[in-house]
Amino acid sequence: MTTTQPQKLPFGSDYLQGAHPALLDQLVATNMQATPGYGTDAYSDRARELIRAACEAPQAEVHFLIGGTQANAVAIDALLSPWQGVIAAHTGHISQHEAGAIEASGHKVLELPSVQGKLSPADVKAFVDGWWQDGNHDHMVMPGLIYISQPTEYGTLYSLSELEALRAVCDECDMRLYVDGARLTYALAAPTNDATLADLARLTDAFYIGGTKCGALFGEAMVFPVPNTCPHFFTVMKRRGALLAKGRLLGIQFQALFENGLYQRIGEDAVEQAERIARMFIDAGYELAIPQYTNQVFVSFDDATLARLENEVDMSFWEHLPNGRTVMRLATSWASTEDDVSALAKLLA
Amino acid sequence: MTTTQPQKLPFGSDYLQGAHPALLDQLVATNMQATPGYGTDAYSDRARELIRAACEAPQAEVHFLIGGTQANAVAIDALLSPWQGVIAAHTGHISQHEAGAIEASGHKVLELPSVQGKLSPADVKAFVDGWWQDGNHDHMVMPGLIYISQPTEYGTLYSLSELEALRAVCDECDMRLYVDGARLTYALAAPTNDATLADLARLTDAFYIGGTKCGALFGEAMVFPVPNTCPHFFTVMKRRGALLAKGRLLGIQFQALFENGLYQRIGEDAVEQAERIARMFIDAGYELAIPQYTNQVFVSFDDATLARLENEVDMSFWEHLPNGRTVMRLATSWASTEDDVSALAKLLA
Amino acid sequence: MTTTQPQKLPFGSDYLQGAHPALLDQLVATNMQATPGYGTDAYSDRARELIRAACEAPQAEVHFLIGGTQANAVAIDALLSPWQGVIAAHTGHISQHEAGAIEASGHKVLELPSVQGKLSPADVKAFVDGWWQDGNHDHMVMPGLIYISQPTEYGTLYSLSELEALRAVCDECDMRLYVDGARLTYALAAPTNDATLADLARLTDAFYIGGTKCGALFGEAMVFPVPNTCPHFFTVMKRRGALLAKGRLLGIQFQALFENGLYQRIGEDAVEQAERIARMFIDAGYELAIPQYTNQVFVSFDDATLARLENEVDMSFWEHLPNGRTVMRLATSWASTEDDVSALAKLLA
Amino acid sequence: MTTTQPQKLPFGSDYLQGAHPALLDQLVATNMQATPGYGTDAYSDRARELIRAACEAPQAEVHFLIGGTQANAVAIDALLSPWQGVIAAHTGHISQHEAGAIEASGHKVLELPSVQGKLSPADVKAFVDGWWQDGNHDHMVMPGLIYISQPTEYGTLYSLSELEALRAVCDECDMRLYVDGARLTYALAAPTNDATLADLARLTDAFYIGGTKCGALFGEAMVFPVPNTCPHFFTVMKRRGALLAKGRLLGIQFQALFENGLYQRIGEDAVEQAERIARMFIDAGYELAIPQYTNQVFVSFDDATLARLENEVDMSFWEHLPNGRTVMRLATSWASTEDDVSALAKLLA
Repeated sequence: MTTTQPQKLPFGSDYLQGAHPALLDQLVATNMQATPGYGTDAYSDRARELIRAACEAPQAEVHFLIGGTQANAVAIDALLSPWQGVIAAHTGHISQHEAGAIEASGHKVLELPSVQGKLSPADVKAFVDGWWQDGNHDHMVMPGLIYISQPTEYGTLYSLSELEALRAVCDECDMRLYVDGARLTYALAAPTNDATLADLARLTDAFYIGGTKCGALFGEAMVFPVPNTCPHFFTVMKRRGALLAKGRLLGIQFQALFENGLYQRIGEDAVEQAERIARMFIDAGYELAIPQYTNQVFVSFDDATLARLENEVDMSFWEHLPNGRTVMRLATSWASTEDDVSALAKLLA
Repeated sequence: MTTTQPQKLPFGSDYLQGAHPALLDQLVATNMQATPGYGTDAYSDRARELIRAACEAPQAEVHFLIGGTQANAVAIDALLSPWQGVIAAHTGHISQHEAGAIEASGHKVLELPSVQGKLSPADVKAFVDGWWQDGNHDHMVMPGLIYISQPTEYGTLYSLSELEALRAVCDECDMRLYVDGARLTYALAAPTNDATLADLARLTDAFYIGGTKCGALFGEAMVFPVPNTCPHFFTVMKRRGALLAKGRLLGIQFQALFENGLYQRIGEDAVEQAERIARMFIDAGYELAIPQYTNQVFVSFDDATLARLENEVDMSFWEHLPNGRTVMRLATSWASTEDDVSALAKLLA
Repeated sequence: MTTTQPQKLPFGSDYLQGAHPALLDQLVATNMQATPGYGTDAYSDRARELIRAACEAPQAEVHFLIGGTQANAVAIDALLSPWQGVIAAHTGHISQHEAGAIEASGHKVLELPSVQGKLSPADVKAFVDGWWQDGNHDHMVMPGLIYISQPTEYGTLYSLSELEALRAVCDECDMRLYVDGARLTYALAAPTNDATLADLARLTDAFYIGGTKCGALFGEAMVFPVPNTCPHFFTVMKRRGALLAKGRLLGIQFQALFENGLYQRIGEDAVEQAERIARMFIDAGYELAIPQYTNQVFVSFDDATLARLENEVDMSFWEHLPNGRTVMRLATSWASTEDDVSALAKLLA
Repeated sequence: MTTTQPQKLPFGSDYLQGAHPALLDQLVATNMQATPGYGTDAYSDRARELIRAACEAPQAEVHFLIGGTQANAVAIDALLSPWQGVIAAHTGHISQHEAGAIEASGHKVLELPSVQGKLSPADVKAFVDGWWQDGNHDHMVMPGLIYISQPTEYGTLYSLSELEALRAVCDECDMRLYVDGARLTYALAAPTNDATLADLARLTDAFYIGGTKCGALFGEAMVFPVPNTCPHFFTVMKRRGALLAKGRLLGIQFQALFENGLYQRIGEDAVEQAERIARMFIDAGYELAIPQYTNQVFVSFDDATLARLENEVDMSFWEHLPNGRTVMRLATSWASTEDDVSALAKLLA
């Protein structure tokens, strides 16, 4: 666990603070209103409308969940048949850092190798073809779904053509495609990104628009572009303890995020700051372990430098490299200030 | 689902509004602070301290969950061995209104008859004795836990001596005792109540102190009076999608609830208003379907009166009686105002 | 557990001995043949053909499982969606004596009261209607399947018109109908029975033809009258550890049972013996606790008589009656001999 | 699935025929005896005694299950806590060929690379150490058990010192050790083997002695060297549909296997034949893909040779090699005859 301490420069993660002030303001303004529960309120309905519009998917079914692990576990189980498993990068969040939440619902995570967090469509195709060709395949877990995250856990992006290629594999092999968008706004805002919300709605069976790491107190918006993709999803959420009693808290926040382009703006600002930080490190002679695309910057340090910098800057440990160096991650967010970035610049100078 | 409309007098439930202003103020005041995630922050630690003190259980392990169904499902699964089931009233929340969340984790709810929502210790004892005496008991689900709610779904209360009797059954029969405290403050504040938080900590293996229905935006505090009752409960929560990323949101709210006796005061105020409402109905010639003890008032209506009143007052449908009358529930909370109660009085006059 | 001792008259159950000699002979005769595994052999195919013919269901999909609890658990899970539960009599085998096997797959058993082991179609209809009418039904477990056993655990029978009425409820309420036929041959052979295998195939979504209690070493034949009712059922069985490696052992036994009407004959002989036993008890002044229809005879005893008889006869304890008497069950089977029945007659004389 | 045809030489697998005649004779001899069910009979008790003696583990708890997937799934779930996963070779049976049976009970299979089917103790240690050192380990699946098969799926063997090294890792890291002995007799009989049944009982927390592939119609004997390792295992089996009604069928077969050293002899004979077959191939200029240790012979073929030989010999497809050749597996068993081996010799000559 990151042991962030407030006095350090807060680049440890993108969920260290509360909510973007615009969201908090709305929660305060609506606090004394009485509304029905479980997401059946008018705020949630309005947020659903805004999300459908942003996705250019007027028929889409939208449900609000509380956090990422929950969103992944509930949706993936609902998208799979009991005898199916989900293909994911070995480095994927569901493979490594969700404490077995997918297996807890009875499904195998079929882990494939990845490069900088990304699955290759060709690898997926080869794996699925192998399954069908294997004479024992009815003794094996049937691949039913591809899980990817956009951006990945390594801050890399699937291009539109890669997404289309994964969709094509799904169509050929009777599988579904699911995108974990915990940090989706930072993908949407990345200069190199060419896949829009509308593309995701067109190409996936389900994806979620992350709130927790993108400006909300908490909350993720699950989008099923085709309604009834997962029947009785309301009850499915309830059965998994994933239905918020005061569901409007999610509706109000997502309404605020999607009302005036705020969600996109949060992404753009954070990515811009991450670009500055990446450049600062490069200019100061540091090496990035992975190119910076979104709001995450992965820097490789020697021990002495790391020890010095860690006293001043909150960063996340990423991995030890075989060459003895250590990769740390810095993340920006709506809460990153110009002052923070400038202070960091000073430390690197 | 209750179809509350704001313009009616809001007695439909105790979770129609946001949070008690004192809690919201704290969320606003701390919004820009950077803290570590998943409940490892100082606010959560402080809230745990306050709860331990209120329970006179200095060793207690306290975890924060987001909602009631989730809290029940995660804790009950953790308290049971796989081959065990949980005894509950047929009318219990886990028996009826949690969409099979307990069964979803593989456990049978062993439903017993109840009177006004309460299990009788003698009935429980007889059931468990029958299990042990049955020659086939190793082909049957072993009772491993008693689930009760305090107050019950019918607003009734277990007395201290009843709780002690249930504890005694558990001790005799190698079972555990768990209390669902979704509305616990209204039990603690009831004039007829004689079971304190310290009693619960002394007599149960686990119980939760409800936040969602008692003044918080959301949140329930799970108390294990004996530490390590459920090993690795942090990971168990994560695996079930029940770990809030910005865990401090729960810590901050429970700190506010327990800092200056606010939790107790919220209960007292709501119970007092419920008493006034109950008296108003009785004085106006109505009949209570169940005596009023806490913040819930169950009134029996004929069709004509109900139709008239429903235009003005948001209430929850409870049940149709064999005699053709309908029972409706009114609930008060921190958000019930003197004006609301007075307006209701006028309608009944 | 029944503590049968060989020297007593063996009426404790219908699965105390091995297999009907005709089946064992076939197992011996085929022992040295090499066949492919997992039920893909010619014997299993032939048994499937014979069962389809007996059920007048030429399209039916037939799978072989090893035992009753396994058959119920695997099929019921496959027939239900995750958010659905199964309606069963409170006295049903899946409600009481399968150690929570249904809940272990995540489904609630929705227990309804029964009379002598039978569900009433009207009760089922009322329950399901109540579910749909309840404003909270999307917070409750959706009834998705009716489970009955034919004959029931109390040796009683559903008439054809009752089965049709249950089917009608299923059609009206979008549910499925499943019949546990652990002792099916004894139902088919009962003089009062008017529901044939073809009726079961016409009226149910799935049912199993019991082998273990009807002459086989082990084995149950699951019949899905409409193919692909449960997709990938082969893999579903494998995933649940329910696929026998040497699957032909099941095929060979069911082929023998259905080749020359043996299954029906086993039922007829056992029911005839049970009728004689029932009459013997009645003639000797005993009282049957439940009328005898199939191969089970439920007799009510006072303590002294029971103590005396138990020294000589292996029977199963059924229940203690409020009047102090005890109900014991005697069961006949293919292995009951004329000598056994005559010896019992002598004891009662 | 292997599509064995009886007229070919039957080397496709070691479970193509029924049971060793000595077992079948006993099943026939005892067929008409009435015994209590579910493994509570005297034959099962006697078999347990013989197994305890063979394992030099007088306190061991022994349970009989029906097949390998079932045995693995039930025992591994019982050995793990819900938040734990099981370490296995990527090529392990539970990783690949059990249709997700382990995940179906909620546990992740933590797959590690292997060489010829074997896990290296050092790799396991490094993996577990990594888990403990990772700052996020409480968000990850905790390794709780090591699964190995003896012999492995590739016919290779763990040496006694390797087993001791794995045990040491378990002791250091608070894990358990489990051995899948589906083909255990062929390991015990291998000339290079130095790990006895007593060693397995001394070093593991549980292992099973395979029957299905070692001469029985079906059946696996699960050995817990320390009693109560998995409490209420009888009910756990029942709940999973893994309890055979006529449990004596398992007891009778294991009694026959262990009464006069038959189990060991079956292994020795089959291994000797496999050695002859391996030598025959080598002498005829073929290449073994993996050295032959037990009853399995893995031979690498070019397409033309394979096509020719497949017309006469039933073998199992194993894998396509990058060099275009194909690996096929031949397996011997109690049912392999001198005539079969000689006929094969003729084909290779």
